[in-house]
Amino acid sequence: MQPKRLSVLGVGLLGGSLGLAVKSVASDCRVIGYGHRRATLDAALALGAIDEGYDDPAAAVRDADLVVLCTPVSLLGEMLDRIAPFLADRAVVTDVGSTKASIVRLSEERHPGIRFVGSHPMAGSEKRGVQFAQSDLFRNAVCITTPTDATDREALEAVEGFWRGLGMRLKRCSPAEHDRLICDVSHLPHAIAAALVTMQEDAALDLVGKGFLDATRIAGGDGGLWRDIFLDNRQNLAAAIGRLRTSLDDLERLLTPESSEALRDWLDRAAERRQAALKP
Amino acid sequence: MQPKRLSVLGVGLLGGSLGLAVKSVASDCRVIGYGHRRATLDAALALGAIDEGYDDPAAAVRDADLVVLCTPVSLLGEMLDRIAPFLADRAVVTDVGSTKASIVRLSEERHPGIRFVGSHPMAGSEKRGVQFAQSDLFRNAVCITTPTDATDREALEAVEGFWRGLGMRLKRCSPAEHDRLICDVSHLPHAIAAALVTMQEDAALDLVGKGFLDATRIAGGDGGLWRDIFLDNRQNLAAAIGRLRTSLDDLERLLTPESSEALRDWLDRAAERRQAALKP
Repeated sequence: MQPKRLSVLGVGLLGGSLGLAVKSVASDCRVIGYGHRRATLDAALALGAIDEGYDDPAAAVRDADLVVLCTPVSLLGEMLDRIAPFLADRAVVTDVGSTKASIVRLSEERHPGIRFVGSHPMAGSEKRGVQFAQSDLFRNAVCITTPTDATDREALEAVEGFWRGLGMRLKRCSPAEHDRLICDVSHLPHAIAAALVTMQEDAALDLVGKGFLDATRIAGGDGGLWRDIFLDNRQNLAAAIGRLRTSLDDLERLLTPESSEALRDWLDRAAERRQAALKP
Repeated sequence: MQPKRLSVLGVGLLGGSLGLAVKSVASDCRVIGYGHRRATLDAALALGAIDEGYDDPAAAVRDADLVVLCTPVSLLGEMLDRIAPFLADRAVVTDVGSTKASIVRLSEERHPGIRFVGSHPMAGSEKRGVQFAQSDLFRNAVCITTPTDATDREALEAVEGFWRGLGMRLKRCSPAEHDRLICDVSHLPHAIAAALVTMQEDAALDLVGKGFLDATRIAGGDGGLWRDIFLDNRQNLAAAIGRLRTSLDDLERLLTPESSEALRDWLDRAAERRQAALKP
């Protein structure tokens, strides 16, 4: 799908990058932004990430053929409620949220008439704000769509084609499966990174090297955004923390000279699996 | 200290980078390498990381004014035993090991006559081998020296001056304090990263983004090297894992909508402390 009029609701780092990315591949697409602060809209306009900016979502979705919700996950439902009466007949709606079960369920329960498709482009940054937007943020990254039996197949293909057009590699899974797997590779690592920073003495933080800074980079993300993600996905996160604890139990049992070979195998296996995850 | 004849025992990524770094700031310094494989010595010679290569440590330390042990931590003691009879009278010896209590104790107990100073330049990579050596590996990184009451002060200052000459920022602490603090900011993060990879389903590893890859980069390091570090520092590591578990307990208690504000504070505080650790 190549939208002619794209509505981006929320023009922060992700929404701004989306506008820049679309305009870099389809210069004839008109990008309409919604933001609740005028200064953000002005910044997005100045960067060329949007062509028009509104502080009213109803105005921002008018006549749009594709609407992308780019607000924090806790506001996605409210945004859908606000735009529902104003969508064009054939409009397709998707989002960029890091959790999918809640918003997909809400869209189906409260707005069965909207052609909504859950998306999670796995791109972002620990930075926040449209000033950090990048036109190539989505390129070569994975995007997961989360269709259900209720999802309009034409809308699904349109949304997948849209992300593919920005250079993304598409995967599909159910909303529940998405939330479980993404918890393991994204929400849990964030929780662990934050815990790793939190437990440090000041004297230790004074000695950190590149390894520590890379391992904890994600913990630099916005606390409010991540709070919402953690709470929305809290059951999966608690289960994932439990499984990490089991993995640490295994390691602790190997911390003796008698288990030297098994410890090496455990570390080698981790290094190999991490290496395998690098391949696209 | 500007050595005229530097002996680098072990010419892998660290030893090779050391040779390149020294030659980039002191072209008149002669760098002598020891390696147990001829191919490694040839590669180091070809890269210009060393001027002469020997497969006998005794030959490599002859007439050297500074000797730097760059072997894996489990081989440091043996290497010190092997070179002890062949060191020049005024030779200063240091090392680059990630743990310090064992080697400093061993040097004082078995070789009180050697002017040994424990060093830990906090630079490295998950890669291995002289082919990944970089002349700027040490620049702007922290180097910790671990003197004790038995350390020769002149030798300590010589070693610190040497690292400072490569652009490093010097810190001092006791060997025991070093091993405890570095466990928290280096060995524990490595253990956690490996556990994070180990617990993943294949389907989840298929969905990883940049956040996961950065958070687990250190887990790509050599299993044998890290096994040795973990075993040498196992008491600190077990204690650190215990404290991380406590930090995760705290987080789990906050995973309810009722604790929403406290959860946000916990995440914000982690982000702030991580930001503070970025400053040099």
